[in-house]
Amino acid sequence: MHNWGKGLAGALWLWCLPIVASGQLLSDDALAEAAAIRDMALESGLAYELLESLTTEVGPRMAGSEADARAVAWGKAKFEALGFDHVELQPVKFPRWVRGEESARVLSPYPHRLVVTALGGSVGTPAGGITANVKLFENLAALEAAPDDSLDGAIAFIANRMERARNGSGYGPAVIARRDGASVGARKGASAVLIRSIGTSNDRIAHTGLMRYNFAVPKIPAGALSNPDADLLERLLSRPEPVSLQLTLEVGRDREYTTYNVIGDIHGSEKPDEFVVIGCHLDSWDVGTGALDDGFGCATTMAAATLIARNTESRHRSIRVILYAIEEQGLIGARAYQAAQADQMNQHIIGAESDFGAGPIYQFSSKVKPSALGAIEQIAQVLEPLGITFGNNEAGGGPDLIPLRDAGMAVANLNQDGTKYFDYHHTVNDTLDKVDPESMPQNVAAYAVFAYLAAQYTGDFGFDLNEE
Amino acid sequence: MHNWGKGLAGALWLWCLPIVASGQLLSDDALAEAAAIRDMALESGLAYELLESLTTEVGPRMAGSEADARAVAWGKAKFEALGFDHVELQPVKFPRWVRGEESARVLSPYPHRLVVTALGGSVGTPAGGITANVKLFENLAALEAAPDDSLDGAIAFIANRMERARNGSGYGPAVIARRDGASVGARKGASAVLIRSIGTSNDRIAHTGLMRYNFAVPKIPAGALSNPDADLLERLLSRPEPVSLQLTLEVGRDREYTTYNVIGDIHGSEKPDEFVVIGCHLDSWDVGTGALDDGFGCATTMAAATLIARNTESRHRSIRVILYAIEEQGLIGARAYQAAQADQMNQHIIGAESDFGAGPIYQFSSKVKPSALGAIEQIAQVLEPLGITFGNNEAGGGPDLIPLRDAGMAVANLNQDGTKYFDYHHTVNDTLDKVDPESMPQNVAAYAVFAYLAAQYTGDFGFDLNEE
Repeated sequence: MHNWGKGLAGALWLWCLPIVASGQLLSDDALAEAAAIRDMALESGLAYELLESLTTEVGPRMAGSEADARAVAWGKAKFEALGFDHVELQPVKFPRWVRGEESARVLSPYPHRLVVTALGGSVGTPAGGITANVKLFENLAALEAAPDDSLDGAIAFIANRMERARNGSGYGPAVIARRDGASVGARKGASAVLIRSIGTSNDRIAHTGLMRYNFAVPKIPAGALSNPDADLLERLLSRPEPVSLQLTLEVGRDREYTTYNVIGDIHGSEKPDEFVVIGCHLDSWDVGTGALDDGFGCATTMAAATLIARNTESRHRSIRVILYAIEEQGLIGARAYQAAQADQMNQHIIGAESDFGAGPIYQFSSKVKPSALGAIEQIAQVLEPLGITFGNNEAGGGPDLIPLRDAGMAVANLNQDGTKYFDYHHTVNDTLDKVDPESMPQNVAAYAVFAYLAAQYTGDFGFDLNEE
Repeated sequence: MHNWGKGLAGALWLWCLPIVASGQLLSDDALAEAAAIRDMALESGLAYELLESLTTEVGPRMAGSEADARAVAWGKAKFEALGFDHVELQPVKFPRWVRGEESARVLSPYPHRLVVTALGGSVGTPAGGITANVKLFENLAALEAAPDDSLDGAIAFIANRMERARNGSGYGPAVIARRDGASVGARKGASAVLIRSIGTSNDRIAHTGLMRYNFAVPKIPAGALSNPDADLLERLLSRPEPVSLQLTLEVGRDREYTTYNVIGDIHGSEKPDEFVVIGCHLDSWDVGTGALDDGFGCATTMAAATLIARNTESRHRSIRVILYAIEEQGLIGARAYQAAQADQMNQHIIGAESDFGAGPIYQFSSKVKPSALGAIEQIAQVLEPLGITFGNNEAGGGPDLIPLRDAGMAVANLNQDGTKYFDYHHTVNDTLDKVDPESMPQNVAAYAVFAYLAAQYTGDFGFDLNEE
């Protein structure tokens, strides 16, 4: 049955009733063990140590950079040092994108240097840059509404600003300007596109992030201005004089590069070939040190699996921690993992990814078959003392789980408070000081509870969800 | 009598007593007029308009830059457009300091690019930069304590961090590392000095600011790292391996340059040659747009004087608004003003400067002779509805007033809440969005009350304080 989850209205009705789940449940022993691991995790500094190590000894690790290779070596060495049963590097090929000098200068009516960053995947500007007048569009829809070819070589500036929200819901409506601005702009006759940074702070720091090209139109360069610079450009454009701007973005793709998904397994005793999959992405953008995006997720899930391995006798199934490669540039590592494991998809019983900054977890959601909701409720009860409530049975699972989820894997989300996340996301400001060492263990405890109980569950969560 | 203020214990005792001041007082008419101007100022958007204009049409305006000249022209044109009775440019000569490329890279044990800015007045690094190991010092005192010549060409890193406080009291103890670090470092044998930025935020933005050289030791380059980069460097230095760093600062002095103090007067009817002096500094550092430091002060005091001129029949004395040149590089404009006016110092009856960001004013302090304290109390009473309390009679008057105060002029302070000021101070983040248009009029109202009542006062505040 397709869309089985639809009629459950978030499965919240289950919450108000005695448990009626027909499926298998977790044993009292497993629940007691999970509670003990949870409390132990709250006292552990392991995750912060791992994050300190990654941000200090590797730093920024954009896919294809010299530091990318060091990050892969770091992940492998850490898995081995932490005593994982099996460690593996899985190759991932991609066309490398590199960044050189970047500048944006208003030439007239009043000269200003603007803080700019190229969007990931953008083509570069020609030698000498692009000098053109700027035309303001309130948002992508306004640019869409302009007649084709009407910009006559102007630089289109898309000024919409992301709204702050705990669950990051402001990102989606704003980020379409980043993703599609260049192709829409090209169709309208723009020579380049600038957007207001997709972020929530007033820091004079530009937010990078992936864009994509529509192959039907020419490729034009695309960059993001810091929010204060976007304000300034709006003020300049509110005056009668035309605003002339020189944009230089020395960026582009150079050659094919091979990086690696880094995989660490903790073996299960009964079904070692079946996996609870937790993880993060190991790559970052080149600007910050990737402390929040996504070093925090790597450190959290590596620490959670380590604490399980060190403090429990055995698990029914295996726990796999995947440090996905090149998430930032289009989930390329995750797609490579899924392609390589296509024949073993039914060995992936449920997955969760940590990739939403450093905030505390406030909500647990699942996407499992109905017969597993009883076990999900049991997991939720062990998470509850961490301040985590159950959300619904419509979880997405995190970006790198999209290919696995689309292939039928059950997923869960441990949703973090993202109120401040987009102040730092994809900027130079993504550094270790934005992580609170005191609150990080709550995340580790939640992942440890989830992974341990999911691995102890003898039923299944529906690894063939799409076929039900 | 010298040190007469000492025995007053902040003059706060006056507050608890009926007025016993023997000096002259302000008339009820003047007080009522001041209250009316105050309430009018609270409704005025003029100051924000001026600040929007300065930051948009001029932007950063480091002394000696192309924009410095535009700022001077802006100030003159605005004074004229606002209807000031007399506008004057007063030449100020200085050796220009310029900034080119800047970079700091950790080469080993783990490569990192650090966010760095040269300190104002620093010499540059030689061609190819300086490559040396880094040695950590907790603060300037720790560097002082090292044996002379013991650093053997290392780069000294001074790691002390500024504390946050409403009155900015954390600045003084921290900023000595910026001011004196290079000369102390040179004596200890360092090839260069890096400091942790003198600022309170965790933004990955470096804070510039003036340093000075002791002529008895060689000049070595000095820069500031952003706070997150200072954290990173400390973490690197906590590991056993030596930390090698390459520092390039293409900065230095080039030639003599002439800029201008911009002076605008509103004439008084009875004693037009005697002045209440309010103002700000017009120059900024080159990194932000100088919205807080000190565009806000210029806009506030220009608007206050304009509102007085437009809404009162006459003033006993004149009101002079001075936009001081080149404050950031050593009060050079203020010293030039004082030198030019040395014979007219007794025509400067009292002064105040706005130069502490964009926060609301919470306190009014004075430094006047005792017979004027009755009038000061009357001014304080008109300020009270703005949420401003009286502080003491030990005011400093603001940086550009130091030469005038030292020459005997009475001064006042309208102290702003500086809790957030040092998040932005001397950085790229000093931009218009950090100013709240809603709270700015409170500052204008306070300066209007002060300047109007001080100009209406027929007594004197003690323009020969040092000679009493």
